[in-house]
Amino acid sequence: MAKFPVLEIFGPTIQGEGMVVGRKTMFVRTAGCDYSCAWCDSAFTWDGSAKEEIEKLEADEIIARLQEEGGDHFDHVTISGGNPALLARLDELIDPLHELGIEVALETQGSRWQDWFTEIDDLTISPKPPSSKMNTNWETLDLILEKLDDAGRSKNVSLKVVIFDKEDLAYAEYVHKRYPNLSFFLQVGNDDLEEDSPSGLASTLLSKYEWLIDQVMASSALNRVRVLPQVHTLVWGNKRGV
Amino acid sequence: MAKFPVLEIFGPTIQGEGMVVGRKTMFVRTAGCDYSCAWCDSAFTWDGSAKEEIEKLEADEIIARLQEEGGDHFDHVTISGGNPALLARLDELIDPLHELGIEVALETQGSRWQDWFTEIDDLTISPKPPSSKMNTNWETLDLILEKLDDAGRSKNVSLKVVIFDKEDLAYAEYVHKRYPNLSFFLQVGNDDLEEDSPSGLASTLLSKYEWLIDQVMASSALNRVRVLPQVHTLVWGNKRGV
Ligand code: SF4
Ligand code: SF4
Repeated sequence: MAKFPVLEIFGPTIQGEGMVVGRKTMFVRTAGCDYSCAWCDSAFTWDGSAKEEIEKLEADEIIARLQEEGGDHFDHVTISGGNPALLARLDELIDPLHELGIEVALETQGSRWQDWFTEIDDLTISPKPPSSKMNTNWETLDLILEKLDDAGRSKNVSLKVVIFDKEDLAYAEYVHKRYPNLSFFLQVGNDDLEEDSPSGLASTLLSKYEWLIDQVMASSALNRVRVLPQVHTLVWGNKRGV
Repeated sequence: MAKFPVLEIFGPTIQGEGMVVGRKTMFVRTAGCDYSCAWCDSAFTWDGSAKEEIEKLEADEIIARLQEEGGDHFDHVTISGGNPALLARLDELIDPLHELGIEVALETQGSRWQDWFTEIDDLTISPKPPSSKMNTNWETLDLILEKLDDAGRSKNVSLKVVIFDKEDLAYAEYVHKRYPNLSFFLQVGNDDLEEDSPSGLASTLLSKYEWLIDQVMASSALNRVRVLPQVHTLVWGNKRGV
């Protein structure tokens, strides 16, 4: 049995973003990322600052912990990171969750393929725009989305791009043009990671959301799209573990 | 050609609620409702206050108006009310929209069936909880959902219940128990329809949203659910036509 580096297990709470926004879910946050986005809102998963908190857990230990925290109050688990696609044997966690009747969502930036991608119920691929200072490997992304399509999983997949500025928006238009048939989500970027007051942050983010809506409404290259804020951030601000 | 009573045609903007929250869409708001919910946020569609604004339009006139307003910046139209399910010949609008490659969403409380329900891409059935002072006709609702299921449309349908208080929540639990296989959305109620300041309203609604999340997270009868605010109300408050 593989041991997975786990930083947080919490919930139930709502999924605050993307294709199943609002879904009641538990979270498992894994440590480690092959990127280092300029505005990463979970840098503690890879920058060493939470190194002491990482636990090495086998799948059955993670499931026991989920059940301890969530009791019978959940039937959905979101695996987030960091980049959980670094973990080759994650099917050891996904399969028993499915056997328990629990759906599994996962988010990754699309920098590498894993065979268990085809088993994820709600798979969000979130390529990173220019403001992140990362470079997208389009060949890898093509390959990932092709394999998912070949496996008949397109309905379980969505693309999501976080938008901070006009350059990011041009990147999003390009992504949508390259993969026009996939569900496409645009999300308001939060670069106010030091703001402690949830209500102050909410009003900043709602202004940015309005800006993003205006931009997208005016673009004929972005029609079949959904534009969302991070609803958990509107409620709880930058607090961890909610 | 049937003439439909239309109150507003506007967009593109985002869908603020439910199964395709965030979706870029145009809105067509029809007049008339067989209910009179205590907290109706579009009472002007049925209480006579906007009688002078109702236009009687044929489908091709509605489509021309949509194209005038939205240009090539949309591929999705949401028909709302009032209760658009009062309009027997709405297929005269839905079919040509589909021919133009435009998806159609519609919301109704589930008080009556129309054959064109099976053609709606995103159909939200929103039975009204006790706080509305309306009574649900369960036989009608059963029939509607059965017919949609028989037509293989369950993936295009969701149930949505607006929640104001604990009694509404008990009602929602009952709805979810009665129709466990349908996508189920819980939405924060807005009874602050006189509040003019969007930011004041946003902070009230986010507190209510947090309350609703807490309630749902604690209920093992509400697991396979999604809990959402009205995101357009967070941005624009009670303003019409956005
Ligand atoms: S890919 Fe995600 S976890 Fe990794 S650095 Fe970027 S935002 Fe952070
Ligand atoms: S069913 Fe909808 S439009 Fe009709 S009164 Fe109730 S809330 Fe208003």
